[in-house]
Order: sequence, then C-alpha cells, then structure tokens
Amino acid sequence: MKKIGVLTSGGDAPGMNAALRAVVRKALYEGMEVVGIYQGYDGLIKGEFELFELGSVGDIIQRGGTILRSARSPEFMTETGRQKAADNLKAEGIEGLVVIGGDGSFRGALELSAYGIAVACVPATIDNDITGTEFTIGFDTALNTVVEAIDKIRDTASSHERIFIVEVMGRDAGDLALWAGLGGGAESIIIPEEPLEVNEIVSRLHQSSERGKQHSVIVVAEGVMSGAKLSQLLKDEADVETRVSVLGHMQRGGSPSARDRVIASRYGARAVEELQAGQKTVAIGMRNHKIVAYPLQDVFNTKDCLDMEMLKLSKELSI
Amino acid sequence: MKKIGVLTSGGDAPGMNAALRAVVRKALYEGMEVVGIYQGYDGLIKGEFELFELGSVGDIIQRGGTILRSARSPEFMTETGRQKAADNLKAEGIEGLVVIGGDGSFRGALELSAYGIAVACVPATIDNDITGTEFTIGFDTALNTVVEAIDKIRDTASSHERIFIVEVMGRDAGDLALWAGLGGGAESIIIPEEPLEVNEIVSRLHQSSERGKQHSVIVVAEGVMSGAKLSQLLKDEADVETRVSVLGHMQRGGSPSARDRVIASRYGARAVEELQAGQKTVAIGMRNHKIVAYPLQDVFNTKDCLDMEMLKLSKELSI
Amino acid sequence: MKKIGVLTSGGDAPGMNAALRAVVRKALYEGMEVVGIYQGYDGLIKGEFELFELGSVGDIIQRGGTILRSARSPEFMTETGRQKAADNLKAEGIEGLVVIGGDGSFRGALELSAYGIAVACVPATIDNDITGTEFTIGFDTALNTVVEAIDKIRDTASSHERIFIVEVMGRDAGDLALWAGLGGGAESIIIPEEPLEVNEIVSRLHQSSERGKQHSVIVVAEGVMSGAKLSQLLKDEADVETRVSVLGHMQRGGSPSARDRVIASRYGARAVEELQAGQKTVAIGMRNHKIVAYPLQDVFNTKDCLDMEMLKLSKELSI
Amino acid sequence: MKKIGVLTSGGDAPGMNAALRAVVRKALYEGMEVVGIYQGYDGLIKGEFELFELGSVGDIIQRGGTILRSARSPEFMTETGRQKAADNLKAEGIEGLVVIGGDGSFRGALELSAYGIAVACVPATIDNDITGTEFTIGFDTALNTVVEAIDKIRDTASSHERIFIVEVMGRDAGDLALWAGLGGGAESIIIPEEPLEVNEIVSRLHQSSERGKQHSVIVVAEGVMSGAKLSQLLKDEADVETRVSVLGHMQRGGSPSARDRVIASRYGARAVEELQAGQKTVAIGMRNHKIVAYPLQDVFNTKDCLDMEMLKLSKELSI
Repeated sequence: MKKIGVLTSGGDAPGMNAALRAVVRKALYEGMEVVGIYQGYDGLIKGEFELFELGSVGDIIQRGGTILRSARSPEFMTETGRQKAADNLKAEGIEGLVVIGGDGSFRGALELSAYGIAVACVPATIDNDITGTEFTIGFDTALNTVVEAIDKIRDTASSHERIFIVEVMGRDAGDLALWAGLGGGAESIIIPEEPLEVNEIVSRLHQSSERGKQHSVIVVAEGVMSGAKLSQLLKDEADVETRVSVLGHMQRGGSPSARDRVIASRYGARAVEELQAGQKTVAIGMRNHKIVAYPLQDVFNTKDCLDMEMLKLSKELSI
Repeated sequence: MKKIGVLTSGGDAPGMNAALRAVVRKALYEGMEVVGIYQGYDGLIKGEFELFELGSVGDIIQRGGTILRSARSPEFMTETGRQKAADNLKAEGIEGLVVIGGDGSFRGALELSAYGIAVACVPATIDNDITGTEFTIGFDTALNTVVEAIDKIRDTASSHERIFIVEVMGRDAGDLALWAGLGGGAESIIIPEEPLEVNEIVSRLHQSSERGKQHSVIVVAEGVMSGAKLSQLLKDEADVETRVSVLGHMQRGGSPSARDRVIASRYGARAVEELQAGQKTVAIGMRNHKIVAYPLQDVFNTKDCLDMEMLKLSKELSI
Repeated sequence: MKKIGVLTSGGDAPGMNAALRAVVRKALYEGMEVVGIYQGYDGLIKGEFELFELGSVGDIIQRGGTILRSARSPEFMTETGRQKAADNLKAEGIEGLVVIGGDGSFRGALELSAYGIAVACVPATIDNDITGTEFTIGFDTALNTVVEAIDKIRDTASSHERIFIVEVMGRDAGDLALWAGLGGGAESIIIPEEPLEVNEIVSRLHQSSERGKQHSVIVVAEGVMSGAKLSQLLKDEADVETRVSVLGHMQRGGSPSARDRVIASRYGARAVEELQAGQKTVAIGMRNHKIVAYPLQDVFNTKDCLDMEMLKLSKELSI
Repeated sequence: MKKIGVLTSGGDAPGMNAALRAVVRKALYEGMEVVGIYQGYDGLIKGEFELFELGSVGDIIQRGGTILRSARSPEFMTETGRQKAADNLKAEGIEGLVVIGGDGSFRGALELSAYGIAVACVPATIDNDITGTEFTIGFDTALNTVVEAIDKIRDTASSHERIFIVEVMGRDAGDLALWAGLGGGAESIIIPEEPLEVNEIVSRLHQSSERGKQHSVIVVAEGVMSGAKLSQLLKDEADVETRVSVLGHMQRGGSPSARDRVIASRYGARAVEELQAGQKTVAIGMRNHKIVAYPLQDVFNTKDCLDMEMLKLSKELSI
C-alpha cells in the first residue's frame, strides 16, 4: 500500500490527535504517503484532503479535540454519498483509510469497505463502549476529569454536609460512571447495567448517616436518567434532599492523559501496520493488556460485559 | 485580648482553610488562645467549640472546603439566638471573633457585635462580591477552575464547529464571568452589570463566522439567566443552535490557587492583629493591592463598580 | 481470620492511601478487625498499632503519600527484630498482614512469613518494577506528573530552540522513562534495558534539525546515568549543547490518578480476600488486565521484560 | 500610527502568547496593521517578519511559551546591528514596536528607540523582577507550578519524615520563592533580600521537631545559592540531613493561569493604545492594582522593594 488516508469522526475524544500523529508518522516511516481528511465522512465526500508531512502533526500529541475536526454527514448515509467518497479516495490513489472514532464511525467504515477501500478502525470515545477492546482512547482522560470534579464537589458536600448527585456521560454504557465512582469514592453508583433500586440508595444514605457521615456523593450515568430526574425521584420517594451537578461537555475535552497518549500512539501505528499487511476490514484495540487487531464486524456483535466485580467492590468500600 | 474564636460561614470557598490556619497560628504566635467553632453561627449557639493548637491546622493550607464546616442557622436570625451565641462566647472567655465568609456572614457578625463581641471579618467567597475589597478568598481558584473548563469545552466546540454557552456562578455579580470570559477568550460575555443585547451576541457570531471561525464560546453569569434560558432565547429570536454547559458546584471546590493561599494567609493574620489592636467591628480586604482593615459597616454600602474596561477589552479582543 | 494488620513500607507512592482504605473497609465489611501499623516494619517492632474503624480511612482516597508513614528499619534486618515483630503481631491477635510497598518491602514480608504470619503483598511503587504484575500502584500518577513536566519543558525548548535532557526516576527499570517518553513525544528515550548509543542520539538530533525542528527532548532514566552526566557526554563526544532538568521527588507525590485509585482499591480488597481464603504468602497484581494473586516467591524470580515494542515505536514516531 | 511590530524576547514566560494575541487583535481593532517578528531582536535584524491577521493568533491564549520564539542576539549588542534592525522596521513602514519580555529586552527596546522607533514594553518574566510594576506576566503561573510541586514534595516529606530543600527560580529576586514558600506553607524561606542565617533555619527545624512535626520544607531562591550547596551547608554546620529538589525549567512552561491571561491581555492592549497615543518609550505595568504606562527609563532605576511583611508572616505562620 502506497498511500493511505486518515479521518476522525463522531464525538471528539482526548487523544484523537495523538492517534492521528501516530498514523501519519508511522505511515511516513514506512515509506507511504498519508492524506489528512477534514470533517470526517463529510470531508471525504467533499474532498477536503491535505497531503500530510512529519511537521503536519508536530506539537499536537498533547492537545485535546481533533485538528481534523469532525462533522455529521447525512449524505454518507446514502449509497450515492458513499460511492462518491470511495471515488474521491480512488481518484487520489488512496487505497486504505484509518478511521479514528466511535462505533457509529466504525459502521461507516464497514460500509465504505464494500466499495473496495481497505479500512482500519481506531477506537476513540470517552464512553469506552466499543465491543472487542478493553480501552478506547479518551476514556482515561475523561475518567480523570470526572474524578477531579468529584473531588471538588466533595469539598463542598463535606463542608455543608449535603448529598450531591453527579451526572456523568457514557451514553448507554456505565464504564465512566463506574470507574469514576470507584476512583472518587462515591457512596452510590448508578449505571445502566444494573437495575436502579431507590431503596438501596436510601438505605446506604441512612447507613452513612448513622455512622456520622453527613455528606454523600451519588454518581449516575446519563444512560440511566438525568441527575435532575434522580434528584426528583429521591425527593418524591424518600424525601431526601440532593443537589445536582451535570458535568457536561467538559468531560470530552482537555489535554490527554499520559496513558491515553500511549495507547493512542500504539493503536494508530498498529492500524497502519494492518493496512500495510493487507487487511481489509479491521479494528484495533486492547485485549488482555495487549494491542490486537480483530475483524471489524465483531464490533457489532454482542456487547462486552462490564466488570461487575468493580460495582460490588465500590459498594463494599463505601460502607 | 487573650482568647479569640474563629468560624467559617456561608458558601464554602477554596482558601477558607488557609485563612483559618493563619488565624490560629497568628493568634498562638501572639500568645492568645484560639477556639475553633464548628458549623458557623449554628455551632456558636450550640457551643460546638474546640480549643485549637498549632497542629490543629497542620496540613490544611492546600485543602478545599472548610474543616470547620458551614451551616445555615435560622436560630441566629432571632434575638434569642444571637444572645445565646454571645453568652456562649463570654462563658468561654472569648472576647473577639474572626468570621470567614461572605456578606451574609458579615451581617451576622455585625449583629453579634451589638452584644459586646469584637468581630473581624475575612472575605471568602468565589463570587468576589464584597464591597470594599478588590479580591475575596476563593475567587482566583474558581476563576482558574472555570477557565480550565472553558479550555476543555473549546476543544469540543472547535472540533465540531459548535456554539457553546457556559453558565458560571457569581450570584448577582459578574466578576467571575467577566474574568473567566476574558481569560478563556470567550466570544461573548453576558453579565448582570450590562444590559443583555441578543442582537449584539448574534451579530458577533455572524462576524466570527464570516471570517471563517465556526465555533464560539459564550459565557453567561448565573445572575443574568440560566444557560438553558439563554439557549432558548437564541433559538427563538435568532434561530441559533447552541449547546449548554452548567459548571455547577465544582466551581466552589478544589485545592486553593497559590494566590488564594497567600491572600488568605495575609487576611487571616491581619484579622487577628485588628482584634489585638482593639478594633470592634472591622472588615479585612485588599485595596490598591495592599491589605487593609476598614469599618465593617462599609460592606453594606453601595456596591463597588466592576471594571467595565475589561468587558470592553474582551469585546475588542474577540473580534 | 479474625484480625489483620496493614502497613506501608519503602518509598511512598500515590495511591497507597487508596489501597489502605480498601484494605480497612474490605476487612471491616467481611467482619474482621483491622489494625493500622505506623512507620512500616519499624512500627511493627515498636508496636505502633492502632485499631482502625471505617472513619479512620475517610477522606484519604485522594491524598498522596501515606498516612501510615514509612521508615527504614535496620532492626528488622536482624532475626531478633523479626521475631519481635512477629511476637507483637501475635500478642495483638493479628494473624495476617497486608504489606503495601515495593520489592524490598515484599522481601521483608516473605521473611516475616517464616514466623507464622500470613502475608499478602500489594505492589505500590512509581517504578513499576515488581515481577509478576503489569502495573504497580503509583506508576500511572507518576507517569502523568512526568508527562505534564515534559509538556512544560517543551514550551521552553520550543520557544528557545534548545535541546533538553529530562532525568526521570525508576531505579533500575526503564518503565517510567519509556512510557513518559512515548507519551511526551520525546525525540530520544534512554533506558537501562537498551545499550546507550550516543551516536544514535546525535544522529536523531541532526535528522530533526535537517527537517527544520530545532528543539528536542531527551528522556533519560536515572538507572542509566544522571542527566548531568549525559549532558557532559553529549558535549564531550558530539559538541552538542543541552539543558538538564531533574524532576526529582515531585514524581513521588500528588493526588493519585483515577486509575491508580481504582487499581489500589482492587488490589487492597483482593489482599484481604486472599488472607481470608487462607493464603499464607501471596502477592497481588494485574495480569492480562485481570487482578490476580500469585506466590510471593515469584516476585524474586527473573524480572519481567519491558515491552520493547514501545521503544521501537517511540523511535518511529519521533522521526 | 498605521503599522506596528511585535516581538517576544528573553526567557519565555507563560502568558506571552496571550499578550501577543492582545497586541495583534487590539491593533487590528484600531485599524492598524501588525507585523509579527520571529526570534526576538535577532529576527528584527534578519527580517523575519510576517503580516498578522486575526486568525494568526487564534487558539493561542491558553498556550505556554511563545509562538514568535525567542533568541539571543549578539549582533543587536552592536550599533551596526541596531541600525540594521531600525532600517528593517522603517523599510516595512513599521513605526512602533511592542516588546514582550524581561528587563534585558526592555534595555534593547530603549536602545532601539534612539533610532527613531517608538517602543512600548510589556513585562513578561516568571521572576517578577521588573521595576515599576507589581506583577509581570508569567509570575502567577510559575507560582502555581512551584506551589503544586511543593504540595507533591510534602507528600513524600511527610510520609518519610524528611527535610526537603526546594530550589526555585527568580534570578536575583526572591519574589517567586517568597510567594511560593508562603503559599506552600514552607517552614523556612531563603531569599536574596535577607541575609542567610543558618542558625535560624536550624533552630526552626528543632522547634518543629519538638512539637512533634518531623518533616519540613525549606524553599531557597536560586539567587542565594543552589539547593545542593545549602544542603551541604546544613550538613557541615549543623549535621542536618536534607534532600534536594531543583524544580528547574518546568517553572517556565505550562498553560498560563487565568490571572496571567487577564493581565497579559490588558498589558498587551494598553501597549497598543500608548503607541497610538504617540508615546515613544513607555513601559506597561500594574500599580495599585491598576494598569499603568510609565517612562521606560524608570525600569532601570532602583529596584522595587519586596514586601518583607510577607516574609515576616511566613515565619509567624510556620511556627
């Protein structure tokens, strides 16, 4: 393979730039040409291409967001759109494409592969919800952002002896809420993977209170319900007063953590190696703490299970 | 004066602990006894007193919140309550009281002084809304927290070419929003001290857009309206799509900035000096970059003006 | 097992407190009594014991260092000392001991086990140099500290077009230098696991310079040589001017990262489970991304290999 | 004035980019043209000029270092060099120059003004050692960096009951050491503005030790002596064992604090206003918490006094 393209798509995640840097530099190191495509699949259709050099990705490893930007592309949802995208790539002599993004972006890549473009997908989303990989790029950074926010909120909770609900992102997955709750020492963690038991939350609050602990932090994943709704529920069903903090988009930004930069670099480089080795539809990820490549189709199989041991542990430690 | 008390009251602010440490150590250095009072004015009435030593305030200069905690005290609103508070202080031989808090707490101190207790008030609130001082303890830390959040949100805004509204605290004051907006490079800043002009915001957005800048950050002080309401307004009046991020209670926590620790230390020590010098009702603050003491009554005079030059500047720089 | 003890020993690492919290709370959850032992093995001999409750480890999950403190114990190196330590434990009815520390601390635990005390060892060191586990507690935090420092140094390096040498900790292991170098985008990484080639460093500098990049960051592990010595070497052998930054003890402190808190919590709880299950000499760690327990003796076997793929990758990406 | 130039010179400081952004945008807002000059005075001589637009300084307010870079210029020390620099400016139609840097850079500006170029100097150095201004750009950021490092070192100091010496920057000035020592709760602060008394340091250590505090942090300004030398001195004269941490160049980098961004924005804009108002040799700064312009010559007058009250306070609070 002599020339590849690279794009970022879907919600941005810290470390996307580090992955992009790795793709570009690894490709150049291997003697390939590499083209940066702006605005995701939309840019693929509109031909927003730029030939990248070593310097194109200088000084970006530490930057949040994505310099290639990201955009929705309703046109790519159509066969005409995808055909045009594939034609543009072929016209440029681009034989393979690295897609950095989440599962929606991976589906786009799979569909594009039907038009004769080899694709290698690098998982990047703070939600950590891609089947087949233990970690996605951005998860570790978002996790640290959330835990730092919980630390701050706990200062206030503790000074005023209040109960705080912290709503965190994660779409349908509880990974971010679970890890952040355990790392932040939350008294309760509410995730989509477990049925919500208001009684249990309330009895945990009473337990804390009985042993002299007047403040509490409850972490709720957005996939269950909003913080505001949970607050109302606790008020209505148990007459418990709570304050709500919705962390919001801040969770998606920031300079990537060291670990996210390392895995982004490794995933990005591996994607290039897979294209070079002739793979046509492949996803990159981590399994058993090792970087792996696996069939892209597997991403759309049954979801990986969350480690429920961690949830159990969080309950035992916050007694 | 041989024995003083110290309490924290009102909303917590980063640096309250640093101020407390300074009060305790300065008093001990001057040969006084010093009593920590828990739970603000409520603890004054309930007699939650503890004789403090040097070690009582060890390892707290860097911690957010307040180890003395804070609480509402409806009872202190009554004459009976205040009488009881004063009686408790006198029974303990406490002649002077350092109150660390915001303007509500200062009013309580003023009322208490009528019962023969000397009071020295140290301004601590992230809102920076105390008349007579250029800076309150906690403002600088909250400012950095907000600016870091804006940096993160901008990563996403820029990657997706979106317009974000960031709602920041400050009660009726625009200080936090104004400084954070200028420091964060916000495209628009909306504060209570200036009438809201939706047209102006929209025309600034169009201007940006015309020169190729597709993303924008609008900072709105909670004293004007909620982020959600502003978003609706922009949708209704100008058909502009925005995302909203409400920073929330996180703004009140965290390890105090270096500067907040320094001014907290200076304010706290000065409060002790003023009590020692026989002052009866005094507030501590900064004027012309110097630590000053001034009559507590002045806090309830007309509000200090916000530096509107900064607002003008922010508009010139975000063209 | 009805009663266990817990101590921290060796160099402190961020996350030790989170591990301690997990040990205490898990033990209490399981209905055991748990005794905190101050000052490591020295405190074991001197009987510095305190019966811990749930609240004893409240508000410490986020704090660096170790509230149990750590100290050297020459006396424990003697048979008399160890006998006394074991006698003290038995006199208190303590049947099992959790040791949180590095490999020196683990060796002490192994020796103590000969006196009839069951031991479970939790790996905590920023050096990540314990055989049998993929990650030690503290490594991730130190890694982020180093990468943030490299980011800052790069600001200056880039503004002044200079070459900086950054000396990082790690004792005989190159893990911290390697991960930090890859995450920080260092142009060269020098670790004990690979022979030092001055020529290669110099030729990399020339290469960079030829493609217009005037600044460079070289990360050197303290296990190879000091930054000062490397600087002199580059001056003497290749007439290359460099500046040196020795990160020093700062690398060992700080609030633990989210990930370090999570693994500390999991390791600590697992150590209690192993003692409860009747294990006598066990080490806790992570393998294939799973929490495991393995024979303590294995820690003193041949060292785990560093992932040299990462070193190769760092060279390919910093071309 | 229709066209101005702007350069950064001397050691880099966080906030230089924010000042640059303000100069460029304010000038464009006022209808002037503005030219960015790379590599300081060296670039002035070599003609490394670039016409800047609004977008040239986009997304830099939060970045450390200086995108204009900085360099030494031996040639500018000569009359020929300065003549050439002035000729280059005139050839480009540049009538005024904004110089962002420290006192060496200001002296260069003063000399250049003799060739008919109007100059406005913006103080940017982490050392805070410019006569006539209360704060220089970069000081607040460096202060926070140092205090955070002290917090981390204290974790280790406290866990191991050790005495740490922390060497901080500041050239001949003690500002950074004094503020950081006070903010970090250091037990001793050693600055050039006060004679070193080894006896006093030792007696403070003994005092701490007697009241049960086994660890200590001593902050020493590089202008007094190196940390290593002080450590040797304490060993030789008082048999006190200490560890040394040299914070190094890290102190000069990093994303600027909110406050540094705000004052950088204000100073930069004011410099443009002064040139526009016809000033020929002016320095910008802060006095009594207000932005001021004053004769550039005054910078070379007697040094401003350090606030020795702060040093006295630090001693009283660290008893």
